[in-house]
Amino acid sequence: MNNIPSKNNIIETHSKINEFIHRTPVLTSSAVNSIAGCSIFFKCENFQKVGAFKFRGAINAVLSIPQNILRNGVATHSSGNHAAALSLAAKNMNVPAYIVMPETAPETKKKAVAEYGAKITFCKPNQKAREETLHNIVAETGANFVHPYDDYRVITGQATAAKELIEDSGKLDIIMAPVGGGGLLSGTSLSVKYFSPETEVIAGEPAGADDAFRSIRDSKIYPSVDPQTIADGLLTSLSEKTYRIIKDNVSEIFTVQEETIVKAMRIIWERMKIIIEPSSAVPLAAILENKARFADKKVGLIISGGNVDLAHLPFK
Amino acid sequence: MNNIPSKNNIIETHSKINEFIHRTPVLTSSAVNSIAGCSIFFKCENFQKVGAFKFRGAINAVLSIPQNILRNGVATHSSGNHAAALSLAAKNMNVPAYIVMPETAPETKKKAVAEYGAKITFCKPNQKAREETLHNIVAETGANFVHPYDDYRVITGQATAAKELIEDSGKLDIIMAPVGGGGLLSGTSLSVKYFSPETEVIAGEPAGADDAFRSIRDSKIYPSVDPQTIADGLLTSLSEKTYRIIKDNVSEIFTVQEETIVKAMRIIWERMKIIIEPSSAVPLAAILENKARFADKKVGLIISGGNVDLAHLPFK
Repeated sequence: MNNIPSKNNIIETHSKINEFIHRTPVLTSSAVNSIAGCSIFFKCENFQKVGAFKFRGAINAVLSIPQNILRNGVATHSSGNHAAALSLAAKNMNVPAYIVMPETAPETKKKAVAEYGAKITFCKPNQKAREETLHNIVAETGANFVHPYDDYRVITGQATAAKELIEDSGKLDIIMAPVGGGGLLSGTSLSVKYFSPETEVIAGEPAGADDAFRSIRDSKIYPSVDPQTIADGLLTSLSEKTYRIIKDNVSEIFTVQEETIVKAMRIIWERMKIIIEPSSAVPLAAILENKARFADKKVGLIISGGNVDLAHLPFK
Repeated sequence: MNNIPSKNNIIETHSKINEFIHRTPVLTSSAVNSIAGCSIFFKCENFQKVGAFKFRGAINAVLSIPQNILRNGVATHSSGNHAAALSLAAKNMNVPAYIVMPETAPETKKKAVAEYGAKITFCKPNQKAREETLHNIVAETGANFVHPYDDYRVITGQATAAKELIEDSGKLDIIMAPVGGGGLLSGTSLSVKYFSPETEVIAGEPAGADDAFRSIRDSKIYPSVDPQTIADGLLTSLSEKTYRIIKDNVSEIFTVQEETIVKAMRIIWERMKIIIEPSSAVPLAAILENKARFADKKVGLIISGGNVDLAHLPFK
């Protein structure tokens, strides 16, 4: 898949991965609507397999690899949801998953990935060690590298979440997603373009990790340097592939303060009784900080995941 | 309503309250099933209005009061979910709710009840002060006292949760609920008797608040004296009405340890990404402590509520 995914690519991908994924519910809350001043349709990918939308892209990538190559397995570097997602996708196909993780990754994340049966290789916590370790593993095993987001197979998989949201919510004025590396946001913006072209796409990004905001503003990809945010799924920078799609299809990226992220997260936990990770609270935080922009709109909002360490929550 | 609720009472109540309540979803989790060794259908009353099944009984009680009497309002003593439920039910009918609360109640609970527009009267934290204060309010205002559970209107309302669970899950071997005062458990056992008579009803109760277990065992109602448990919805003792129904219709009450309650709560939070209160984890705790009894069974389990203080969670 060498071109920006087409409408047909997304439709075909959705049929292909359908039997592997959960069709997650779209929830609404009158209490949250009343606080936010608009009508929000939450697409709950926290209920997706591995607790995050990432499984959509991972399973699509794995299903796209020809059988004779796939049997060498798949590999990636990640300590987060993509690692768990790729591990489960590989397990579904009965092939090995090789995951490179910094030795400093939290125990809960190491455990989650190990539970899905991946072979974990630890490395020093820097970019060079990570890439070298991955390179060596791929050379030794012949495993297929699946990037967390700079990969059209992954982007197309992530696009299916917004496709379902559009199918289940009727006409929406706005669809929102958080942005880190841009896999979810770029896929979302493609589905909106193809399946609901009158809907606007708006992203939320932590002000402490605002490389995507600056990249789009200045029309050049800034690397994410020393990001400071509780939203641990949004630490990475855009890639060539995600940048281009986002540049063309997303109206606006709002940056938000840390305290608003925690506030938004708490509102969703308390009012909706669902567990979302901090990254997933970023779009609601953007609404809370820009109420006039969203007033009385019908807003679809992708809850990206629900993986948190319950022993270390930000609520006081 | 002066007799034990009949099948028709429950059917009529369900039609009557239907437009006021949420029909909450029944969720399943292959990860939880694999840990528990049985197949569990979770009836998610944490997604009910006010975050607990209590709204079913409260709205039914309010709708059962003739209009000319109802306009004086309703009253109860409670610091928990029943207070919030009765307040919202009264608000729906546009009549006042008078809630008597111990002055020592947690701020979060005072706030929740106040948000629903109730008139709160604080009293000393003892049974005598509570009853006197309530008596005076009823005498002054003409408000209708709605007991949290020793009331057939309330029990019939609570029974509708199990009725929906049975309708949505197909044939179940066992249905479980936690037991405190017994409103949910007695209503559940009546719905099972009428709508799924081959299903067994089993309750879970904290060992540190095991008055219901002892009451059924010894065929006499023991008061709940100095209960010690994290399950703050299960501190009360059975009443005449709930005792009789439970005695006749519940197979078994399992008492469970505090650490198993926290473990079960954590499993549901982590694996299902939903927020449940400690009381709701008690039935799963009973399964975890008695796996052979439940092995390979199809088990309906009522999640009673999801109201927790996020600043004080039991996870380490």
